Amino acid sequence: MYILITYDVVTEDKAGQRRLRRVARACENIGQRVQNSVFECEVSPAQLVDIRSKLLKIIDQDSDSLRIYHMGSNWHHKIEQLGKEKSYDISGPLII
Amino acid sequence: MYILITYDVVTEDKAGQRRLRRVARACENIGQRVQNSVFECEVSPAQLVDIRSKLLKIIDQDSDSLRIYHMGSNWHHKIEQLGKEKSYDISGPLII
Repeated sequence: MYILITYDVVTEDKAGQRRLRRVARACENIGQRVQNSVFECEVSPAQLVDIRSKLLKIIDQDSDSLRIYHMGSNWHHKIEQLGKEKSYDISGPLII
Repeated sequence: MYILITYDVVTEDKAGQRRLRRVARACENIGQRVQNSVFECEVSPAQLVDIRSKLLKIIDQDSDSLRIYHMGSNWHHKIEQLGKEKSYDISGPLII
């Protein structure tokens, strides 16, 4: 199944910046970063359960927001890109 | 139809910050901000054509990235929220 993960992590302190890196890394392991805090991932049901529980453990549920969108089948025709297609280097400088 | 708009606007200069505000305002007119640069919008085909052309005029297509995801029908069951549900004040301070 194809999912989209978007997130807002509060990065006002070091802990928040660490959470942001860990969320990005967890998403990077299963998908492709298409925008700063947007990942597209092709996952099995088991991988979905796994990433969901991983992300729930990483984020601060009182301040951070994370949304998972299920794109269903035929997702190729459901996505439009305007402007520059971006590719990200997870080991590069932290983009806040 | 239900669409999701996500964007990355380069805000290194004043012009970029202005583009960011204008993109957010254009999206805010037709939908609801669910994360910093993520909007969910219920639009007619005509509104989709309109917002697409508006956004194309606003962004710098060489540096900014904007994606439109078509969520199709039955989208209520396709969205999961983890952590804090956020509501945003478009007239509040610019969140970069």
